[in-house]
Amino acid sequence: MPAIGSEIERFIQLLSKLPGLGPRSARRAALALLKKRDTLLEPLAEAMLAAARATRSCEICGNLDSTSPCAICSDSRRDSHVLCVVEDVADLWALERAGVFRGRYHVLGGALSALDGVTPEKLNIAGLAERVAQRGSGSGVDEVILAMNATVEGQTTAHYLMDVLTGVKVTRLAHGVPVGGELDYLDEGTLSAAFKARRAL
Amino acid sequence: MPAIGSEIERFIQLLSKLPGLGPRSARRAALALLKKRDTLLEPLAEAMLAAARATRSCEICGNLDSTSPCAICSDSRRDSHVLCVVEDVADLWALERAGVFRGRYHVLGGALSALDGVTPEKLNIAGLAERVAQRGSGSGVDEVILAMNATVEGQTTAHYLMDVLTGVKVTRLAHGVPVGGELDYLDEGTLSAAFKARRAL
Repeated sequence: MPAIGSEIERFIQLLSKLPGLGPRSARRAALALLKKRDTLLEPLAEAMLAAARATRSCEICGNLDSTSPCAICSDSRRDSHVLCVVEDVADLWALERAGVFRGRYHVLGGALSALDGVTPEKLNIAGLAERVAQRGSGSGVDEVILAMNATVEGQTTAHYLMDVLTGVKVTRLAHGVPVGGELDYLDEGTLSAAFKARRAL
Repeated sequence: MPAIGSEIERFIQLLSKLPGLGPRSARRAALALLKKRDTLLEPLAEAMLAAARATRSCEICGNLDSTSPCAICSDSRRDSHVLCVVEDVADLWALERAGVFRGRYHVLGGALSALDGVTPEKLNIAGLAERVAQRGSGSGVDEVILAMNATVEGQTTAHYLMDVLTGVKVTRLAHGVPVGGELDYLDEGTLSAAFKARRAL
C-alpha cells in the first residue's frame, strides 16, 4: 500500500502479529489509535514499554509479574502447602480471576506433545519435582493439584506428572457439565465424564 | 486482579480499548506480547511511538500520513481532476488497496446523523466545497465521486452533498450484487438495486 507512511505501515504490520488480530482488524485498530494519538496511542505505547521493562518471570513458579518472586509466591497469607500446576500463565490468571484458589502455583510453560516436539525436558517439570522434594524442610507441599487443560496434551501431561510426583497427594480438577452449560450442546466425552462422576444429593 | 503488577494491569486495560479487542482477547494479546518482550512487545511499542509522532492529518484531503500534504495529494501522477469523497480514512485505505482509483480523495470525517448530532458543520464539507470551487483555476475538479457507505447516514450525506456541489459532475458508486456474492444471502434492498440497475449484455 503506497498511500501510507512507512511508520504507519510498520506499526500495522507488527500489530497484526497479535493473537486475535488479523490484517483487517489490525488496520482498524491502528486507525482508531492513530485518530487518538495523544489520548490513546502514546499512553498505550508508554504503558507497553513500562510493562516490557518491568515484567519478569517468577524464579519460583514461572508466573509473569513485575517482581520475582511474584506477588503470589511472596504472599505469606497464601497456603504454601498446596501447589496448583497449570500449563500456562493465562491459566494461572484465569484461576486468579475466579478467586477459587489460595495456595501457590507452578507454571509448566506448555503441555507434552509428541507432535509439536514438546518433551518433558522442555517444560518446567524439574522445577516442580524440586519444589515437591523440599517437603521435608518444613515449608513442604502436601497436595499437588493438576489443573491442565482437558485436552489430549493436557491429560497426557497430567498422567506423566502423576508418575513423576511420588510420595505426595496428587489431585486433578473435576470434569463435568460446565456451570450454565446446556446438555444439548456438550460433547459425548464431557457427558460421559459427568455421568461417571455423578454425586449423591 | 491482585496477582499481576500494576504496569501489566495498566497495559491490559489500555489494550482492551482497541476496537476488536474485548477484555478477554486483550488479556490474551497482552500475555502473548509479554512472552515476547524483546522480539515483539518493545519493537511494537517503539513503532507505535514512531507512528504517533510521525502521523499527521493531510491539510488538503484529511488522510492520515507521515507528511502533509499526504503522499496521494503530492503525487503529481494522480489525476487532480477527479475527487473521490469518502466518510473515513479507512474507506480511503480500502479503495487504495483495491487499486481502482487514480485520482485524489477527500475525507469527510464521518457521515451526517441527526441521531448522533453530526451536522454538516462537523464534517469537512466546507473544505470540499472550496476544493471544487477552485475549478476555474486550471487545476480544477471535473468530477466528484461520492463513495459514501451504503447506509442510511451515508446516503443522507450523499444527497446533502449533491445539493452543495453545483456546477460540477457528481457521480456515486454503483449498488448491486457484490462480486462473489450469492443471491440467497443478499438483502432485499441490494437485490432491488441490482435489478433496477441491470445492464444489457
